[in-house]
Amino acid sequence: MNIPNSYLLKRIVIIGSGFGGLQVATKLSNRFYQIVLIDKNNYHTFQPLLYQVATFGLEPDSIAKSIRFLIRKRKNFFFRLAKVNFIDINYNIIYSNIGELEYDYLIIATGSKTNFFGNQNIEKFSLPLKNIGEALNLRNCILHSIEYALSIRKKKIINFIIVGGGPTGVELAGSLAELKYYILPKYYPELDLNQINIHLIQATKKLLDGMSESSSNIALNYIKKMGVNVWLNNPVKNYDGKTIFTKKVNLKSYNVIWAAGVKGAIIKGLGNKYIANNRILVDKYHKVQGINNLFAIGDVAVMKEDNKYPNGHPMIALPAIQQGINLAKNFNRFFFKKKIQPFKFKNKGYMAIIGRNKAVCDLSYFTISGSIAWILWMIIHLMKIQGFRNKLLTLINWITQYFNYNKSISILIRPYINYNNILTQYH
Amino acid sequence: MNIPNSYLLKRIVIIGSGFGGLQVATKLSNRFYQIVLIDKNNYHTFQPLLYQVATFGLEPDSIAKSIRFLIRKRKNFFFRLAKVNFIDINYNIIYSNIGELEYDYLIIATGSKTNFFGNQNIEKFSLPLKNIGEALNLRNCILHSIEYALSIRKKKIINFIIVGGGPTGVELAGSLAELKYYILPKYYPELDLNQINIHLIQATKKLLDGMSESSSNIALNYIKKMGVNVWLNNPVKNYDGKTIFTKKVNLKSYNVIWAAGVKGAIIKGLGNKYIANNRILVDKYHKVQGINNLFAIGDVAVMKEDNKYPNGHPMIALPAIQQGINLAKNFNRFFFKKKIQPFKFKNKGYMAIIGRNKAVCDLSYFTISGSIAWILWMIIHLMKIQGFRNKLLTLINWITQYFNYNKSISILIRPYINYNNILTQYH
Repeated sequence: MNIPNSYLLKRIVIIGSGFGGLQVATKLSNRFYQIVLIDKNNYHTFQPLLYQVATFGLEPDSIAKSIRFLIRKRKNFFFRLAKVNFIDINYNIIYSNIGELEYDYLIIATGSKTNFFGNQNIEKFSLPLKNIGEALNLRNCILHSIEYALSIRKKKIINFIIVGGGPTGVELAGSLAELKYYILPKYYPELDLNQINIHLIQATKKLLDGMSESSSNIALNYIKKMGVNVWLNNPVKNYDGKTIFTKKVNLKSYNVIWAAGVKGAIIKGLGNKYIANNRILVDKYHKVQGINNLFAIGDVAVMKEDNKYPNGHPMIALPAIQQGINLAKNFNRFFFKKKIQPFKFKNKGYMAIIGRNKAVCDLSYFTISGSIAWILWMIIHLMKIQGFRNKLLTLINWITQYFNYNKSISILIRPYINYNNILTQYH
Repeated sequence: MNIPNSYLLKRIVIIGSGFGGLQVATKLSNRFYQIVLIDKNNYHTFQPLLYQVATFGLEPDSIAKSIRFLIRKRKNFFFRLAKVNFIDINYNIIYSNIGELEYDYLIIATGSKTNFFGNQNIEKFSLPLKNIGEALNLRNCILHSIEYALSIRKKKIINFIIVGGGPTGVELAGSLAELKYYILPKYYPELDLNQINIHLIQATKKLLDGMSESSSNIALNYIKKMGVNVWLNNPVKNYDGKTIFTKKVNLKSYNVIWAAGVKGAIIKGLGNKYIANNRILVDKYHKVQGINNLFAIGDVAVMKEDNKYPNGHPMIALPAIQQGINLAKNFNRFFFKKKIQPFKFKNKGYMAIIGRNKAVCDLSYFTISGSIAWILWMIIHLMKIQGFRNKLLTLINWITQYFNYNKSISILIRPYINYNNILTQYH
């Protein structure tokens, strides 16, 4: 990997530059430690807005920030574009596609990946939405489906099916509904809108399972009014690439979007005893239990010692960010032989956006919805996007879209061909 | 293809939405004709700036404009995303991957494609630059090469080799040189710049063959001062994916960019008698000789009846635009039984940009270079980009880059894996 030796400084290797990894990497003092950040992409992705890239709201560069830009001018700081295949916790070595590297401390911040719950058909045929490549694939599939619908003489129903009624599923369903009713009529006047159906399928009895009853009901109302067919209590059984089979209904579709869950992205080399429910067990100092120089933060880690969260923290951005900051501070404290601090998650609430002027927020003591929640959602997301340029780009896009209901109908960047998906081959 | 019958109007089918196709499509009166525009992409590409997408100057959406956006609200106008495989000029039918379509008039505006001069090795291993996908591929290869150079302990020379000393080759070489000296040191402080070499290889004895002797010399001077190794009189013999063999030198490189020429993108179904030098022979009314309802414009067409251009017009944007306009006007004139007009190319000159404050322009009566030519180049290109949003995005990017020599080092959008190119597999 060609990282210089640092005889005086201990080397901290961080795997993953998501919300947690980026925080710990940038908050660690590079006067006390040599820092090596490794990621399989050369950018940080603002995952909460992936669905807007998929539905033509934003271009990929608005939600991606070059890591080399973020860490420029830092000394004792090295970034490597690499995929880590294996970690050897006995000899303190990581193995990657560009070689191996010894560490003094290792921080695993690999986040989560789509959970297909072991169903290989679904993994093969459905469209996940966990990274920019997948968001572009989904965008291309949406565009291809509509172009296809136009080009055939005999009208066909195009079903867009979203599996999973969490924030991603709800946001995507709302966004597709707005696309259908406000955008498509402008750019596809030939299209009969009745050809396009949007279905949201949820296994449990309510949408937004992690949120309050009232927010969940409001969201359900919003999304139904927007013309989305919502199926509750309706677990998916299978999908063969053409038909999705669920408890209540079977639907034909080439566009099944899988947003039903995530699981920790665990690296090979950690024994099973360190893992619970696909996440790495850590103590309240983010340390993997029993290993003194191994840490995990964010979605991939499960900390059962925070009293309010006996099953671990929710797999969203905020715990990852706070954990990254706390771990970095602890390392800096440790260097000065100060007392390190246990982690306490300061939960600022949950929120989900359904559409224009439609959002729900569960804050600590009360719940809000409608326009105010929608504005709050936008402000918070804008604040969290990395970099001034990306904030500006996103803001300009949102303002334009607000005033003229106008998303410039998207371009197909490097069309995606999925040999399992007939539509993408068709063109 | 599901195009409605138009009993009263004649149907004009246009293949290709480049500079020529877009002009003729939008200038034709849709009160007199039914217009069908077909393209294999759903966007118009501003090809003159592809090299800036490849070298991190612009994002793809700045130089691509959705065709459905450009033609929105037009009646009797149909766009289809399709690839035309064959035209039957006897029965007036085109065959595409989404079905067949009859036409009354057919306009071929398919532009040009990279000319590998029959060398299959070069076609297989080198990187062309004729569309957005290829520009992103090239960007990814550049980034991967630099990341790779960092990750290996033993220093290796990374050669970027550009074949072809026309405007594309010169612009790309200049842009890579600026990348090397101004951008890389900021974001890759570990990198030894001596590891990166840029070579520009030209078969003939001067750069910018179509331009004046003085512009050509100035460009050569500029580009040499920028640290590019220029090889004149040096035709390429072969490239095996690792080493490029030329008359004067053999160089190791995984990054050979092929900008040595283009040829007409001819569709199957036209007999050889209609074709000369890989372009379709047309008369001064853009009509394919001997066929009354078949026309060709732009790079794919060669008109030998314009006195000043006995070998046809140069394969650049301006003749295509002017031909598109003239052909559309002739169709509109024809509808009113007015006299149609022969085409005369109004040449406004040639220009090429080499770098910051460095450009050359051959205008009708004189030649300019330096800052003034550079500003002129930018104004003209900004004017020609489709759409206000794209003009604005491009302008903002250029201004930012001018004042802080700063291109945000790019993100690798959907990494490109070329099984012929070792570097892209490596990561």
